Amino acid sequence: MSILEKVNQPQDLKALTVEELRVLSQEIRELTIHKVNVTGGHLAPNLGFVEATVAMHYVFNSPQDKMVYDVSHQSYTHKILTGRKENFLNPAKYQAISGYTNPKESAHDCFFVGHTSTAASLAVGLAKARDLQGQKHNVIAVVGDGSLSGGEAFEGLDNAAELNSNIIIVVNDNDMCIAPNSGGLYRNLALLRQTKGAAPCNFFKSLGLDYVYLDEGHNMDLLIKVFQQVKDSPRPVVVHIRTIKGKGCPVAQQDPESFHFIAPGQVTNKAPQPEAESYASLTVDYLLEKRRQDPRVITITPATPGAYGLTPQVRAQLGEGFSDVGIAEEHAVAYASALAAGGAKPVLQILSSFVQRTYDQLSQDWALNNNPAVLLVHWGGISGGDATHLGCFDIPLISNIPNIVYLAPTGKKEYLAMLDWALKQNTHPVAIRVPFGPVADNGAQPQADYTPLNKFQVISRGSEVAVLGLGNFLRLGQEVCAQLQKEAGIKATLINPRYASGLDEQLLEELKDEHRLVLTLEDGCVNGGFGEKVASFYGASSMRVLNFGARKEFTDRVALDKLYERFHLTKELICQDALACLKAIR
Amino acid sequence: MSILEKVNQPQDLKALTVEELRVLSQEIRELTIHKVNVTGGHLAPNLGFVEATVAMHYVFNSPQDKMVYDVSHQSYTHKILTGRKENFLNPAKYQAISGYTNPKESAHDCFFVGHTSTAASLAVGLAKARDLQGQKHNVIAVVGDGSLSGGEAFEGLDNAAELNSNIIIVVNDNDMCIAPNSGGLYRNLALLRQTKGAAPCNFFKSLGLDYVYLDEGHNMDLLIKVFQQVKDSPRPVVVHIRTIKGKGCPVAQQDPESFHFIAPGQVTNKAPQPEAESYASLTVDYLLEKRRQDPRVITITPATPGAYGLTPQVRAQLGEGFSDVGIAEEHAVAYASALAAGGAKPVLQILSSFVQRTYDQLSQDWALNNNPAVLLVHWGGISGGDATHLGCFDIPLISNIPNIVYLAPTGKKEYLAMLDWALKQNTHPVAIRVPFGPVADNGAQPQADYTPLNKFQVISRGSEVAVLGLGNFLRLGQEVCAQLQKEAGIKATLINPRYASGLDEQLLEELKDEHRLVLTLEDGCVNGGFGEKVASFYGASSMRVLNFGARKEFTDRVALDKLYERFHLTKELICQDALACLKAIR
Repeated sequence: MSILEKVNQPQDLKALTVEELRVLSQEIRELTIHKVNVTGGHLAPNLGFVEATVAMHYVFNSPQDKMVYDVSHQSYTHKILTGRKENFLNPAKYQAISGYTNPKESAHDCFFVGHTSTAASLAVGLAKARDLQGQKHNVIAVVGDGSLSGGEAFEGLDNAAELNSNIIIVVNDNDMCIAPNSGGLYRNLALLRQTKGAAPCNFFKSLGLDYVYLDEGHNMDLLIKVFQQVKDSPRPVVVHIRTIKGKGCPVAQQDPESFHFIAPGQVTNKAPQPEAESYASLTVDYLLEKRRQDPRVITITPATPGAYGLTPQVRAQLGEGFSDVGIAEEHAVAYASALAAGGAKPVLQILSSFVQRTYDQLSQDWALNNNPAVLLVHWGGISGGDATHLGCFDIPLISNIPNIVYLAPTGKKEYLAMLDWALKQNTHPVAIRVPFGPVADNGAQPQADYTPLNKFQVISRGSEVAVLGLGNFLRLGQEVCAQLQKEAGIKATLINPRYASGLDEQLLEELKDEHRLVLTLEDGCVNGGFGEKVASFYGASSMRVLNFGARKEFTDRVALDKLYERFHLTKELICQDALACLKAIR
Repeated sequence: MSILEKVNQPQDLKALTVEELRVLSQEIRELTIHKVNVTGGHLAPNLGFVEATVAMHYVFNSPQDKMVYDVSHQSYTHKILTGRKENFLNPAKYQAISGYTNPKESAHDCFFVGHTSTAASLAVGLAKARDLQGQKHNVIAVVGDGSLSGGEAFEGLDNAAELNSNIIIVVNDNDMCIAPNSGGLYRNLALLRQTKGAAPCNFFKSLGLDYVYLDEGHNMDLLIKVFQQVKDSPRPVVVHIRTIKGKGCPVAQQDPESFHFIAPGQVTNKAPQPEAESYASLTVDYLLEKRRQDPRVITITPATPGAYGLTPQVRAQLGEGFSDVGIAEEHAVAYASALAAGGAKPVLQILSSFVQRTYDQLSQDWALNNNPAVLLVHWGGISGGDATHLGCFDIPLISNIPNIVYLAPTGKKEYLAMLDWALKQNTHPVAIRVPFGPVADNGAQPQADYTPLNKFQVISRGSEVAVLGLGNFLRLGQEVCAQLQKEAGIKATLINPRYASGLDEQLLEELKDEHRLVLTLEDGCVNGGFGEKVASFYGASSMRVLNFGARKEFTDRVALDKLYERFHLTKELICQDALACLKAIR
């Protein structure tokens, strides 16, 4: 009988010996490797934090004591120990839990967390709420070293020192962000590791926090000892623990960057398949070529280079023309803006979900200063993923900021043409919503110059109905046109708007002549997005407008076809709505 | 003849003796006090940085060497020395310059900057651009100690250490943010001041930056020496200078918080007038009362308590029920959300322009977690102020995030009722757009309960035209109704939408019966805002909709009446547009 069989809740750990806790850790590690290799997920960060999590739950009393996991990349052991082991043991239940902490799953999860650098701030709030209510319990934040470079983490740590009471900040230092760490702070962490915490110049102490160092982050005895030492601490204290990313899984330990988040089967597959052409690979090829031609070209990413195909090899080729600034999206935007102001040619790449972390920098540091940096927004679109990683808010976010030109290419040729123009021109801050999905072309004709701004492209001219298919959804627009022809004999006009940030008022005006209905299709949230602007434009006229896109909600792991059904984003439902609207006019 | 008469550009300083530089500094100080006392502006921070600015321009060569001023609160001496002294000498030219650095004013200003904590990031970008182009010049960031708590400042400092080249970060440490500093970092700054920079635990060194300390920040000889020492530094270096906020102006030196930003005449007026009733004072009274009743109530501000009437006296009365987290808006939101999750009753107050600094925290830390914290957004509305401090983007920003209920009260009673409901309820994240301007009531009837959500209030029922006057603009809606009656005999329906984040679909549906035109009026940017959603709602119907509000642009010190004219926000222009639209239907 395994030890894990006896453990259903954290209190079950209390009866175990230290040796049993060790065995349990090994069982959990093996279970994690097996399960994540089947489903995919965050492998290497979780493997580094197995013993520490077991020790934490052995020493503290969750859920009375509150544990806040930063970005949740190291929360799998916590999940296994807090009533969710079946979701790791039983393949039929694998998909029933999320990859992140989630209060709907368990009282042991304090927050939905999927963006980094938030744990210290959230823990300070829980600690202060405890103090205001005269309660006594421990509040523990678990932060990876990679998350420490984020501004919110710093703000939280800085403010934690103001608490005159208990808060325990566990820093899981595996010497890696997603890619290798960058930034001055990481040299201090290295110094602290080298000196076993004894160096007098100490980032955490400089913020007024007490500090304890543990060098052997997989040693159960010492982990228990250090947590017992800080338990009920009356002061804010940092527990800095050195761990090994990917611990116990040789391939992951050897290449923790590739095994940070893995695809199904990655552990057991010897040779990963060479990647097919993708928008990431197209971008890499383009940037390598540009960099060869022009030393002013520089590619910037905030900590997620792998998502854009910026492998260690590519990074080496780009040399000084590459900056991974670490998890520091705000800095990334200001930095890119200033690079452009200084005459360089910056191309900043961020995922849609993380571009949210930079609104004020997009607005103040970049757009207000009108600097011609280029921002590539990846993975923008309605997604069936976790509520913490949706890609459907970037159009409302970016397109309502003055000065920014937000382009929505529909396929390969158009994307590359827009990227090329964006980098050449010197007049506008330009963001590009990189198409999502398989590389394709949709009949949109690229052009060399995207000035004058806000000129939509008519793909095919018809009458009665005009379909505006923005970016990814031009394809859907084509299907809708075919459906209208089939169902009602309507030859609709199909338009590629190209610009998410402005309207082609002249074209929209002309449409009034031979059309009675305009459909807007956008792969994102309708609220605050593109289509509403079209509706507003036609408000004073008799033109009917139907806006299609996602509703304003945090969808959580709902399959894409279900979402398309829910939001009326299939050719059949759109056609049905359009014909009903036309019928009502008659 | 004064020294200042001889100085028109920075190079004119090179010919002066150190004694003349001292006299010049005194002249500039007196000029600044005189001018700012007439126009209002940032007084105390500028007075503390006169000598340092003179010394910087003496040692470095702007604009070849680049100087980036954080938040620009200490840039007045820089402006005087770089061709803009007439704007301080000649009252007729006072208003021709902005209170912030502005590249349109001078080649010596690298960026438009009005939000804090950006200088290090921007300077890193300029330095990297220089390196990529093989140029040689100094890049200098000037940062106040108060700005260091902001996440972006940390991200910038952390990344500065990655530069293997010149960047000089001047930290102007006057031991004050706007209000007294909070956060652990400030204890380290205090330690460094006490030890004259010798303490081994050093925040800046922990980030991998070289470090120089100057205790006498008003000593011209030493300032010149320290800048000469770091000039052309081949490594990132911090110059930590102790200065005195308000230096040379006794009232400002004594009470630097009140004299951080002053109203006209504040220096010479002995007794400031007691403030009339304002939305800030109403809020203070309410929160004091609530705090007496319930120890769980806590008021949070990120560094600008004065803007909300949270004087030192009020803060003392609130006691543990008050947190000024310093310039750390991101933390403030996550902290408030977690306080609510932990059972406390947080009320977070932020200015509209600064709420932009928190999009991801509003979305992920707060809205996604659905925690019932209360956010008060102050100074929201179209403003005639500087482009860096506009209040017209908060509706697009907040109202398109799922789960957040964004209320727009129209006057005193309704505001207090909404605030009371927001604090009582336990179901929703609630933001309130605090009315702007003189305290008034506009006929809107407050109610005890704002659930169910998105129920608009009909103020007066008519036909033909319905006017939706959101928040501050219900007043304008009343005027428009009167004007329609007067000009065209139309008795319009007047509606108070109350919710900026959702539509009363039932009421909007009913309006179709007896109305042909809906006007939406919002005190903010139309793009992504409230009105477009109404236009989208009616898109499939024959209802005409006209959306009124600000256009998507960064307006810069344009008088409010001019903006209202430009955006058609007067009763006459709205009425004219409405009647033209009605005429076109017939």
